[in-house]
Amino acid sequence: MQIRYLSDYSIPRPSLDQGNEEQKKKVKDILEDVRRNGDRAVKKYTAMFDQAELDAFLVTDGEVDKAVSEVDEETWNVLHEAAANITAFHERQIQQSWMTTQENGTILGQKVTPLDAVGIYVPGGTAAYPSSVLMNAIPAKVAGVKRVVMVTPPGPDGLVPGGVLAAARLAGVREIYKIGGAQAVAALAYGTETIERVDKITGPGNLYVALAKREVFGVVDIDMIAGPSDITVLADHTAVAREVAADLLSQAEHGELSQANLVTTSKELAEAVSNEVGFQLEDLPRKEMASTAINEHSAIYVAESLDEAVEAVNRIAPEHLEIQMEDAMEVVGKIRHAGAIFVGRYSSEPIGDYFAGPNHTLPTSGTARFSSPLSVEDFVKKSSIIAYSQAAFIENADKVARFARLEGLEAHARAVESRFSNKKYD
Amino acid sequence: MQIRYLSDYSIPRPSLDQGNEEQKKKVKDILEDVRRNGDRAVKKYTAMFDQAELDAFLVTDGEVDKAVSEVDEETWNVLHEAAANITAFHERQIQQSWMTTQENGTILGQKVTPLDAVGIYVPGGTAAYPSSVLMNAIPAKVAGVKRVVMVTPPGPDGLVPGGVLAAARLAGVREIYKIGGAQAVAALAYGTETIERVDKITGPGNLYVALAKREVFGVVDIDMIAGPSDITVLADHTAVAREVAADLLSQAEHGELSQANLVTTSKELAEAVSNEVGFQLEDLPRKEMASTAINEHSAIYVAESLDEAVEAVNRIAPEHLEIQMEDAMEVVGKIRHAGAIFVGRYSSEPIGDYFAGPNHTLPTSGTARFSSPLSVEDFVKKSSIIAYSQAAFIENADKVARFARLEGLEAHARAVESRFSNKKYD
Repeated sequence: MQIRYLSDYSIPRPSLDQGNEEQKKKVKDILEDVRRNGDRAVKKYTAMFDQAELDAFLVTDGEVDKAVSEVDEETWNVLHEAAANITAFHERQIQQSWMTTQENGTILGQKVTPLDAVGIYVPGGTAAYPSSVLMNAIPAKVAGVKRVVMVTPPGPDGLVPGGVLAAARLAGVREIYKIGGAQAVAALAYGTETIERVDKITGPGNLYVALAKREVFGVVDIDMIAGPSDITVLADHTAVAREVAADLLSQAEHGELSQANLVTTSKELAEAVSNEVGFQLEDLPRKEMASTAINEHSAIYVAESLDEAVEAVNRIAPEHLEIQMEDAMEVVGKIRHAGAIFVGRYSSEPIGDYFAGPNHTLPTSGTARFSSPLSVEDFVKKSSIIAYSQAAFIENADKVARFARLEGLEAHARAVESRFSNKKYD
Repeated sequence: MQIRYLSDYSIPRPSLDQGNEEQKKKVKDILEDVRRNGDRAVKKYTAMFDQAELDAFLVTDGEVDKAVSEVDEETWNVLHEAAANITAFHERQIQQSWMTTQENGTILGQKVTPLDAVGIYVPGGTAAYPSSVLMNAIPAKVAGVKRVVMVTPPGPDGLVPGGVLAAARLAGVREIYKIGGAQAVAALAYGTETIERVDKITGPGNLYVALAKREVFGVVDIDMIAGPSDITVLADHTAVAREVAADLLSQAEHGELSQANLVTTSKELAEAVSNEVGFQLEDLPRKEMASTAINEHSAIYVAESLDEAVEAVNRIAPEHLEIQMEDAMEVVGKIRHAGAIFVGRYSSEPIGDYFAGPNHTLPTSGTARFSSPLSVEDFVKKSSIIAYSQAAFIENADKVARFARLEGLEAHARAVESRFSNKKYD
């Protein structure tokens, strides 16, 4: 793994894949087809892209029962404990409606309401991700969303991975459709004869899913467009090279475009981690993918001082940040931009991916500058409440009319004044 | 104004204007030009679109001083009081970072951090909107954003409206550039030689500004893409027709595409409001615009029952909702979807536009189904914190490794296990 001096290098960041014009056109055509032709179009694309001929998309209770019964007990217990941890953490994010009252009788406030219906996209293919189900469905459930719908592409046998269905059962998702790709996003956004539209679509997916989500944004809300996964480890001489290297590789195995950086104040650690990465890479099942990520998108940066190292981390705005330093907790306050911060030796990143409780859906590609982890807040929306009393109205009506006229909006001023010149007034 | 029975009609909703391909291409070209050529490109487009030849974009302190001195005292006082109300309301939205500690020593939490830098777009042209400055800048300031930048297009004389500058002074905005359109959005998103890039762009604008914001979304965050303004008044026989009509017209004057609906349980009120609207329209300065909005996009809907009326309102998901009914406050709990809810006779909508305190930037075009008013939350982001203790790690490492292997991610499992097989361990 390459070692560079921070003073000489600016750190490259992978950008979001926006797709090319041809891919965008393809996605737009699918969306339009599903919007017009509903289930018929969804069926067509499911046969075309997933090689599955389905009569109905809905997963039956029987299919879920079967999946649950096939999960071994230990795995079920782990899923169950993870779900409990995720629930407990997200319950802390619940916001209350609030109101303020004024002496003149006016009430102002903010009402928090769960979304009516949410669609969760769960990727299929070779890798099945039960953790995605938990991390998307549980915050929605905790928020109070009544209708949580899951979509996931079927295999050519028309089936959905059992682990995903078991996780759905654990998370309380009861409406599951075997559809995927842009056609699934379209079905969720526009609705079909058998699938009612939702208000928001969350969850990861391939490029076509991402393009489709971007395209329907506005018709429905979306969570975020995820780029390649990334990790930055901020470490000093107290860190253990073997552990740092293993944590870097855990993100590198996500894909060729992943980025795994080490920023360190220790030249010795830099060299030891570089060696360890090479060594550990050798017998990784996903060696090829991880090697490309490490060699083409990642590096070890040596900093002259803690301040220089911290500033580099803030410039990176990593999705995952590990702080493996003496007094690691004291460094947290210096971090302005990071999706999740893992503090200390025992906070290995995968603990957050699966188990600890905070969400694993995090801002990638430097968007931690302005974005947050997926949370309960993503599944509620707010309404302002303004209840002016007669006294407050009489006191302030002229001021409002003056402000409106300053902006040239006469009908706004007259709306307020209409209360004065009416028989029913006073 | 047309009267319809809810039982017979589904209520049409204006959709977001997405622009045509030619407009999108134009915007993309401008963005790309500014990204490559910086100030030179911004200067070129400012001359082209605003007919202003500028040597520098930055508004000087002297220009702001002059603008403030030209505002009459009464107007200044109104602006000042509005700013105080907006500040007080938004201070209620401040969220705290939080942490939970577990007996085994683990700490989990959520850190709230203000964005580093935010750009506020303030439209120019014939109408100057000081209220936009207050409604965008104050939440950013309350959130703790250090750098709040304002951009607004200059007139052909190279000047910016005084009211807008006065509002900027009141809101504490000190970095103001005389640029507008897609070129201003590009300068904020990518940065130029004289304008440092920001992390988020908020504020209303014309179609080109909206298209540019949509295009740079991902490079920076944006607030929302605003559609035409709308209001729905929910009223019974106790409402005053003259006042309801005036409130409907206050939104209709915003533009030809605005929508102003009345949903009422009273046939008599429906007829009276219909007459009043016709009558009051006659001598409105923006009569033409408001007439088009009323005749082509708005209607009065008569409901058989309160429940039917409320259900219609929830289907509309209005930007502004007025409840002009007996026991209006009791109806609030039935409303699931609305940007702002104005309760009772004295809560005329313009009071919320300018003065009461809640934000006037609200979800349009039915997006109140899933979106919220602009708030302090739009100017902060969160980072999860995971600090596992050794005890918690030993207790849970095997479970995490099991979950990782369930998803086929071996390097994730090994990252956790690397803590066990190391000399430094224990």
